[in-house]
Amino acid sequence: MFTLDPQQPATDQIVSQMLAAIDSGRLGDGARLPSVRQLAAQLEVSVFTVVNAYDRLLARGCIRSRVGAGYFVCRRPGMGAPALVAAETPTLPNTPLGLVQGVLGGNPFSVPAGSGFLPEAWLEDTLAPAVITRALRRHRFATQPAPAQGHPAVREQIALRLAQQQVQLPAAQLLTTQGATQAFDLVLRASVRPGDCVLVEDPGYFMIHAQLRAMGAKVLAVPRRADGPDLDVLDALAREHRPRLLFTQTLLHNPTGGCTSPQVAHRLLLLAERHDFWVLEDDVYGELASQPGMRLVQIDGLQRVLYVGSFSKTLNPGLRLGYIAAPSDWLPRLLEHKVMSTLSGSALNEAVITDILESGRYRRHTEQLRERLARARRASVPALQACGIQLEHADGEGIFLWARLPDGLDADQLTRAAAQVGILLAPGTLFSPSGQGQSFLRIHAAYGSDPALLAFLCDQAAASQTSGPRLRLA
Amino acid sequence: MFTLDPQQPATDQIVSQMLAAIDSGRLGDGARLPSVRQLAAQLEVSVFTVVNAYDRLLARGCIRSRVGAGYFVCRRPGMGAPALVAAETPTLPNTPLGLVQGVLGGNPFSVPAGSGFLPEAWLEDTLAPAVITRALRRHRFATQPAPAQGHPAVREQIALRLAQQQVQLPAAQLLTTQGATQAFDLVLRASVRPGDCVLVEDPGYFMIHAQLRAMGAKVLAVPRRADGPDLDVLDALAREHRPRLLFTQTLLHNPTGGCTSPQVAHRLLLLAERHDFWVLEDDVYGELASQPGMRLVQIDGLQRVLYVGSFSKTLNPGLRLGYIAAPSDWLPRLLEHKVMSTLSGSALNEAVITDILESGRYRRHTEQLRERLARARRASVPALQACGIQLEHADGEGIFLWARLPDGLDADQLTRAAAQVGILLAPGTLFSPSGQGQSFLRIHAAYGSDPALLAFLCDQAAASQTSGPRLRLA
Repeated sequence: MFTLDPQQPATDQIVSQMLAAIDSGRLGDGARLPSVRQLAAQLEVSVFTVVNAYDRLLARGCIRSRVGAGYFVCRRPGMGAPALVAAETPTLPNTPLGLVQGVLGGNPFSVPAGSGFLPEAWLEDTLAPAVITRALRRHRFATQPAPAQGHPAVREQIALRLAQQQVQLPAAQLLTTQGATQAFDLVLRASVRPGDCVLVEDPGYFMIHAQLRAMGAKVLAVPRRADGPDLDVLDALAREHRPRLLFTQTLLHNPTGGCTSPQVAHRLLLLAERHDFWVLEDDVYGELASQPGMRLVQIDGLQRVLYVGSFSKTLNPGLRLGYIAAPSDWLPRLLEHKVMSTLSGSALNEAVITDILESGRYRRHTEQLRERLARARRASVPALQACGIQLEHADGEGIFLWARLPDGLDADQLTRAAAQVGILLAPGTLFSPSGQGQSFLRIHAAYGSDPALLAFLCDQAAASQTSGPRLRLA
Repeated sequence: MFTLDPQQPATDQIVSQMLAAIDSGRLGDGARLPSVRQLAAQLEVSVFTVVNAYDRLLARGCIRSRVGAGYFVCRRPGMGAPALVAAETPTLPNTPLGLVQGVLGGNPFSVPAGSGFLPEAWLEDTLAPAVITRALRRHRFATQPAPAQGHPAVREQIALRLAQQQVQLPAAQLLTTQGATQAFDLVLRASVRPGDCVLVEDPGYFMIHAQLRAMGAKVLAVPRRADGPDLDVLDALAREHRPRLLFTQTLLHNPTGGCTSPQVAHRLLLLAERHDFWVLEDDVYGELASQPGMRLVQIDGLQRVLYVGSFSKTLNPGLRLGYIAAPSDWLPRLLEHKVMSTLSGSALNEAVITDILESGRYRRHTEQLRERLARARRASVPALQACGIQLEHADGEGIFLWARLPDGLDADQLTRAAAQVGILLAPGTLFSPSGQGQSFLRIHAAYGSDPALLAFLCDQAAASQTSGPRLRLA
């Protein structure tokens, strides 16, 4: 009945040939399969191989077993073939959800230049089977429920890693989260009510703007300058609106790539004290700075600052582990909101991160990552500039290049046109709570020298030079 | 200002009397509290007691401190009190957060009889290193960002598994979540606004009650009968209050262990149609029924029903993977709320579940689990009955035994006393949105024959027989 290719896994071949026989009707509904022993003898494979193959067919629901009677084809109307997975709603990356879906693989793009995650090729080693296997062996808690605050072992390792960056925080003040996104969600749920005012940077991370709007908060935009938020505007807005919170990224700001200077950081905290608002400091990219930069939490010490980090941007997004460091009186509220929104974290993921930190693998990985990003920037910066694009913080570090487009190009239109040719862009408008950013793209340094991207950008720039406003109407 | 009962913990009394004064408006917004020393002197308690009480009020966000100036009432409209942190020590399992922390290992208990998770010893094989290694080899997506809706491969496997239980749902209607808890959170966020009415079962799963209260929803309690929710009460409440949603568990209901009969299921859906409310069907325990039971979603087909499942209760809580099956017009909203609260799921966990389902391992595991639970029930039921405890659905299936205590025993007091000797109990009051359940405990079948638990329960029952109401005041 079957023939097997000795070069290929036998189990896979038995499953696929059996499926083909069922789909084609050669094996009809109710037909009896050969017994495990019969098929093993006929194909000259082990009984174990056939049991595995039949188990997989059972799991797909295309055969069933009757005790003592054997295995039978079970072709149920509409279910014979594996359930069809509809394509995710095709969305353009001009909205927060659209960009996230583009980045997360809902829509495959051949050049994900708008992504904020590391390239696939850079991630392969980070979760090698050997790494996971060791984590499971060393940390038995991987298979038990995780404490709601996060397992003490992973919080301890995070605190040690932070101490290496001159951030001294006790593990008891840490709470693990499902990436930085959940950290922001918990802080907002614990503190912001509809109508409350919250300060954000313009441009700044788009997800926090969406989260705030979904909660009915009023979003106040503070222009982001080369050395941090514009403190004059911040002061005036805080005086007038009595905000609850400021959201800011001190190091390697998304999307501009800049860092807040120590002077601005100090004055920002003075304003927080004077106007009695909290500072939500997002530090998911700080590990990518080659010199330990100055974070707000370092000079503030959790008086006014809630500090958020994550391993999704620096290690692997497949794990989804982030954390909040919060003042003691915040912790019970944050914990409560974590329990009510996700109960607890994944112990498996917490164990894997524990081991990657504890073994020193994470430190070595981030060192390599910084070198890789520096190389990528050295290739991307001149290539993009040659297309007439100006870059802010061109000699900076990190994942992002904040690219000012040549005159005549509109970021949203460019993003739509790029999506047609498999290029994912992140238009500047996404990052601006005040609706600006039409002249900017956020470009991932690893893709800034991609020939397809460069050809597309140069073509579009040339077309806009010759045809003027035609492109805008396209 | 206050008077303290010397028989009761002073800290609790200060907190609750202060809260009452704030709630009633006797202490208005901005009012200054007595200093720690003043209040300690006035009440003749230690400074430490007052500091603890003020810390708890700070954590609830109803007062704030200004360095050098003292403590002030901070009554923000709509902030209310956190739903989970009770006035008493939050680590006792008499509150939802306390029980969750007890179960999740925040407080180690030698006999976790109040847990809803499987015993540690039953979980060891489920995430063996070989299982994870194979999943990583077979599913390369494990190390890439997961699509926001969940990876198509895991959704397809979940759909196949559901089909084996006669639940026909296309994978395209499924959305993965961080356990069932996130599934509930997303549905509530997408549909419930402050002041909306939601029907829940009494007794029923405590977390949904807490989630609803935290969102400012009105919780309407429908008594849970042996064959499902009381439809007469449900009809009357729905007629009067026009609820948005009913939360119900059809199979192996938590905490009673009962199943909704097909007749009640059909009539319940007719009421949903007549009164125009949605039904949130929680099926996290249905896999533990030996006969495929009748779920609401099977007769409704996602017309009125949102269906939630999870692998945390049947496979391993270390993974935290659940899912929602939702009508098409719900999916974009649910997806958006998932992105805003956690961005996406863990691809590693989705890959592991994919492989465990695809290989047939999950089917074999749940078969073993049912046998193990049946054995555990055969040992626990007569042992508990011998202590004078009556059990509902004693000949039923699943994890839970709903235990009516002998006269004279109070579930909350019993729970506090048990915690002193390392026994975690789940008092019936936790499960009752109307504040009943004082005579009930929810007991995990695997621990119902534990000698330490049985000795404790028998001793307490005997003591209450001889000393009468003395125990209540202890």
